[in-house]
Amino acid sequence: MTGPRAFASDNYAPVHPDVWAALAAADSGHARSYGDDPVTAALGEAVRAEFGEQAFAVPVFNGTGANVVALQAMLPPWGAVLAAECAHIRHDEGGAPERIGRTSLLSVATPDGRLTPELIAPHVHRDGFVHAVQPAVVEIAQATEVGTVYSVEQVKALTDAVHEAGLTVYMDGARLSNAAAALGVPLRAFTTDAGVDVVSYGGTKAGGLGAEAIVVLNPDAILAAGHITAADLPGGDASSAAQRAEKALGYLRKASMQLGSKHRYLSAQLLALLTDDLGIRLAGHANAMAARLAARVEQIDGVVLTQRPEANTLFAVLDPAAADQVRARFPFYDWDPQRHEVRWMTSWDTTEQDVDDFADAVAEAVAAHG
Amino acid sequence: MTGPRAFASDNYAPVHPDVWAALAAADSGHARSYGDDPVTAALGEAVRAEFGEQAFAVPVFNGTGANVVALQAMLPPWGAVLAAECAHIRHDEGGAPERIGRTSLLSVATPDGRLTPELIAPHVHRDGFVHAVQPAVVEIAQATEVGTVYSVEQVKALTDAVHEAGLTVYMDGARLSNAAAALGVPLRAFTTDAGVDVVSYGGTKAGGLGAEAIVVLNPDAILAAGHITAADLPGGDASSAAQRAEKALGYLRKASMQLGSKHRYLSAQLLALLTDDLGIRLAGHANAMAARLAARVEQIDGVVLTQRPEANTLFAVLDPAAADQVRARFPFYDWDPQRHEVRWMTSWDTTEQDVDDFADAVAEAVAAHG
Amino acid sequence: MTGPRAFASDNYAPVHPDVWAALAAADSGHARSYGDDPVTAALGEAVRAEFGEQAFAVPVFNGTGANVVALQAMLPPWGAVLAAECAHIRHDEGGAPERIGRTSLLSVATPDGRLTPELIAPHVHRDGFVHAVQPAVVEIAQATEVGTVYSVEQVKALTDAVHEAGLTVYMDGARLSNAAAALGVPLRAFTTDAGVDVVSYGGTKAGGLGAEAIVVLNPDAILAAGHITAADLPGGDASSAAQRAEKALGYLRKASMQLGSKHRYLSAQLLALLTDDLGIRLAGHANAMAARLAARVEQIDGVVLTQRPEANTLFAVLDPAAADQVRARFPFYDWDPQRHEVRWMTSWDTTEQDVDDFADAVAEAVAAHG
Amino acid sequence: MTGPRAFASDNYAPVHPDVWAALAAADSGHARSYGDDPVTAALGEAVRAEFGEQAFAVPVFNGTGANVVALQAMLPPWGAVLAAECAHIRHDEGGAPERIGRTSLLSVATPDGRLTPELIAPHVHRDGFVHAVQPAVVEIAQATEVGTVYSVEQVKALTDAVHEAGLTVYMDGARLSNAAAALGVPLRAFTTDAGVDVVSYGGTKAGGLGAEAIVVLNPDAILAAGHITAADLPGGDASSAAQRAEKALGYLRKASMQLGSKHRYLSAQLLALLTDDLGIRLAGHANAMAARLAARVEQIDGVVLTQRPEANTLFAVLDPAAADQVRARFPFYDWDPQRHEVRWMTSWDTTEQDVDDFADAVAEAVAAHG
Repeated sequence: MTGPRAFASDNYAPVHPDVWAALAAADSGHARSYGDDPVTAALGEAVRAEFGEQAFAVPVFNGTGANVVALQAMLPPWGAVLAAECAHIRHDEGGAPERIGRTSLLSVATPDGRLTPELIAPHVHRDGFVHAVQPAVVEIAQATEVGTVYSVEQVKALTDAVHEAGLTVYMDGARLSNAAAALGVPLRAFTTDAGVDVVSYGGTKAGGLGAEAIVVLNPDAILAAGHITAADLPGGDASSAAQRAEKALGYLRKASMQLGSKHRYLSAQLLALLTDDLGIRLAGHANAMAARLAARVEQIDGVVLTQRPEANTLFAVLDPAAADQVRARFPFYDWDPQRHEVRWMTSWDTTEQDVDDFADAVAEAVAAHG
Repeated sequence: MTGPRAFASDNYAPVHPDVWAALAAADSGHARSYGDDPVTAALGEAVRAEFGEQAFAVPVFNGTGANVVALQAMLPPWGAVLAAECAHIRHDEGGAPERIGRTSLLSVATPDGRLTPELIAPHVHRDGFVHAVQPAVVEIAQATEVGTVYSVEQVKALTDAVHEAGLTVYMDGARLSNAAAALGVPLRAFTTDAGVDVVSYGGTKAGGLGAEAIVVLNPDAILAAGHITAADLPGGDASSAAQRAEKALGYLRKASMQLGSKHRYLSAQLLALLTDDLGIRLAGHANAMAARLAARVEQIDGVVLTQRPEANTLFAVLDPAAADQVRARFPFYDWDPQRHEVRWMTSWDTTEQDVDDFADAVAEAVAAHG
Repeated sequence: MTGPRAFASDNYAPVHPDVWAALAAADSGHARSYGDDPVTAALGEAVRAEFGEQAFAVPVFNGTGANVVALQAMLPPWGAVLAAECAHIRHDEGGAPERIGRTSLLSVATPDGRLTPELIAPHVHRDGFVHAVQPAVVEIAQATEVGTVYSVEQVKALTDAVHEAGLTVYMDGARLSNAAAALGVPLRAFTTDAGVDVVSYGGTKAGGLGAEAIVVLNPDAILAAGHITAADLPGGDASSAAQRAEKALGYLRKASMQLGSKHRYLSAQLLALLTDDLGIRLAGHANAMAARLAARVEQIDGVVLTQRPEANTLFAVLDPAAADQVRARFPFYDWDPQRHEVRWMTSWDTTEQDVDDFADAVAEAVAAHG
Repeated sequence: MTGPRAFASDNYAPVHPDVWAALAAADSGHARSYGDDPVTAALGEAVRAEFGEQAFAVPVFNGTGANVVALQAMLPPWGAVLAAECAHIRHDEGGAPERIGRTSLLSVATPDGRLTPELIAPHVHRDGFVHAVQPAVVEIAQATEVGTVYSVEQVKALTDAVHEAGLTVYMDGARLSNAAAALGVPLRAFTTDAGVDVVSYGGTKAGGLGAEAIVVLNPDAILAAGHITAADLPGGDASSAAQRAEKALGYLRKASMQLGSKHRYLSAQLLALLTDDLGIRLAGHANAMAARLAARVEQIDGVVLTQRPEANTLFAVLDPAAADQVRARFPFYDWDPQRHEVRWMTSWDTTEQDVDDFADAVAEAVAAHG
């Protein structure tokens, strides 16, 4: 099965060979289900090495699952989530945050997808007014929905402001590796070390088959952990905040239909991507291909890039007829049809030849229709 | 990675080589995401061949996802689900049917996990009394939670009674292939042809990595389809009940966090298991191993089987110390600790040697402790 | 407007004159809305006098509202409620506990509507198994749905057992005053002093127009209180468990659509019923009328009482044609049509003449049809 | 009990004497509960006379209840609500629309609280994209949250545009009578006759004790009605769209904890307010008092009205110290503290003397602090 080379989404790409190898290695004999297996244990170690000793991962099936389970665990029953107006959780998750996460989404308009202390300031005030949903979590995406990347300093400034207001920070990391590659720093530099409380780690787009993880960096941000008692931790120690947080997420993951039975195969993908920075290296390649494409197309009269590509996503305005001509060979999506803006996305398997062929096709089409 | 040979659950087993081969075959180049790919199209054809021309499949991540998304789609907002007291949806899905499916579960006590027209008769009456949740769907599992299998005639008698009462039937088919193998008939004999409205097809336990499907046999049972209009089906034909049902399930699957992005890998597993009856053949082997084990252990003084194994599950009473001795080598679960009842389960990869080793271990342990 | 005298439900009765007087007294000039008014303050004092210094009330619109808001506040997100199989929350609240309270209901069969330590023992074990909903609250009704009344000792024995298991107790007190009158003790004797954590106080059936209250006796049972911080209590003291519990219930009441704006009128009803034991005196009258009716009808051949009336409800078996003849003059409901069992209920305004007329009508009808 | 005269909210006002009289008239003897009583029947007639022959009312406890039950009934499970950014349902209902109504709220910024065809145009497009919540209902408030009133023509233009897009219109009428009084037209002129599908009728603020009603003008807009069958309407006629819609709302009202048992008292309030235009007359007085206040305060240097009062609400900017001085005698709320904007609201019982005293107090305070 081979479809046309696409610049539509990084989820059009196949599974990276190293991830396959990890899946195959995990596929031997019997293993306990639901996460009580050696691969998942190894993933736990890798996560601690990557994100810090207190961190733990909760693998789930997809990005919406990661976002909604994490937010549920972080929110009081009356809590609202503050996010950028363009956020994925607002527009692209079928309403799951409200329906399943049972929260309200408060929006903040942003110039480039990034929240700042100034932008959130008018919204993070909790006054105890029972009529109003109470903001409790600030959600950011890294990279953002529009392809921008928060610098380490920008994350730090934001988490400081959020914590000062008594709220916590969730980072949607569906493209976390692209951000790391773009910044040239380890994952923990702009997560744990920058004050993020909970982050998701995206495995699917990074080269996996289908696996994401909630990574808890600050167990105190898991409000649901307050409900865990010794009765929930047979033989366990309810005095550990991390253990309580992990158990609370365990219940919520199950109740949210995000617990995989043959769990080793979820863990194996995530472990492979964390090993030797595979995920970041693949994302770095995707980012480089986006930069190459940007460099090519900005030479073309009739194509205007609307956002500097910082990760693996480009947004461009061009003639719709030209866009359709290119799209017949290389699938991609419209972004804002009224502005004639399209989105181009590269992935771990995009080649230089792909980029050059695509840029040539754009140039031809624009020449024909421009 | 190889753990001890287990009789704990069929989800301890690895992925069958033919499923791996299908995954590998799907892993080539770019493919559209979210189900708009050739493998998913081929799965659609296989499902029609297996279940009838009107049938269509909605792949999801796990069994709870299949059950909850299907039930949501079949229920009015005030509808309740009638199920056996021992049902998986009641006890083993973390409350997801109530929390996410937003339904009430009405229980019927059964002698052997099977509902009958007589057992449900007192409960299926809808009287329009607004104070009471209204029974709308009868849920059965095939094979049942306690390892029994409905005969074709039993399913037919039940669906007739349910339809006469104005309700519809959902069949939890997490072990549908085991039932088919036990009955020696094709899947459609006890689903489509026996009046079942919607069934789930379990791929994970049958030899997959992680994939299940909702299979709609009667689109009129998808009440949510009534809300689909031409606006939801751009270029489509809203006059087709099946198309409306499929779209409604599409929305609900997404809103329930059960839509996979690299969808081809879900479809590939399911397609492989449906091809040349792979799933049924593997389940037949598992069933045979359970029968072999039953034949062996019922020779052992001090072991009492509490339920004739009809599929791949045995329930036995034996001395707890003996059970623990066996468990140290071969993991398995307690079922009813008060009765000293344990559950033994075989899987597609259980060998005759496994069974014999296990039976020997049981005999030894009972001799030592009995 | 005057309908026929009914033995159908205590909610067919009008408002008691003393409650009217209290409503009229509250109806003067402007008052702050949403509970920040003097009548609500006076209610708070009355509740402390009645239930103990730590108690506080949260007025709501109806019984389902009281039950669902209270249970939400007491449960962890993954918690289930254990209740008698015949419980009102299971059968008569339109599924609101599951839909709005987002919980699972676990049922225990009872001989007479009353739970006991023995009956709940098999169900209150929490083992931390993430697949299963975790029992967290035991719900009882006082009086029960079938008209029986827990003795003080029975409540105490049950709450001891529940607390020992690490769960808490919610008492549905839609007919709390009937229970107090039946037992001849103050409300606190079988609530606060008997270890109940949270109770509802039913005002509507007791003689009100429409008002119920959640009364928190043990603020530590309000798990949601753990999410309240100083930010939620401007100028308040987050170190007080009661204040946190009250705030948490404030948010949940609002989010559950149970916060009245002209709140003084809810409080006035409840205050009137608590003043000088009005509610208990009225309930005592209703109970006496039920006893009088029982004494009369058990003299009638062809009528069998199926439950000794302990409060204001009788259950009787009689010929359906006879029942219909009586019902034409005095409305009442069938209870179990298959057994020809009907329910007769008295209310605060049932007169001795009503009872005698009704008993005569029953005697006549049975004689005609028996 | 008499608090200070307030300009804080129309829910600080007491119950109008004519409403009391109606409550007292309803309070005689026994009446069937849950709406099967003569007062509710009379309300039905009054609603048909007011809103048209096809209209029916569903009384509920409060405004949030009306909004959330109505929206639930109008939405498909995946449907979103489009509303003004300043809408009450977004900011002042504790998240109930999302939590209980299980919907997403899409916001549209407005200059004055009013939506227009142009403002909604970019948002009402349904494209069947499963990732996005699908707009299904446009919600407007009449009067709006900022005190403006849609003209008949403005409503008509909007409903035409909404219907053309395949959506339906819900009007939050918590202050519907104020709008009617402001426009000088009957209620149906800007509801039924202007193409509104469902409206709420606010009784509490209009002079009631606590009662609102959902009024269905177009039963086809109640999507949940599609799930009603003959089994839900014993002896009824499932072919009537209105009867199906009423039954569907009956189930949803119960499941949403908004069904009153002594229902006659809810209906009596609403009936009294509809009789001889009592509600509109009272609202007209409140509007006039707001206009009088506006005329007075705009003479005061140091007070700037930020919105022309069209109903009973004024917004003004003045010195915060001056505001606090006035507030010590006459309670009112801040609206936008950053702009020093306050909200002043009149009610049915505001007198000319109240207005003059208040305006004098404002003048004094501004002179002292300005």
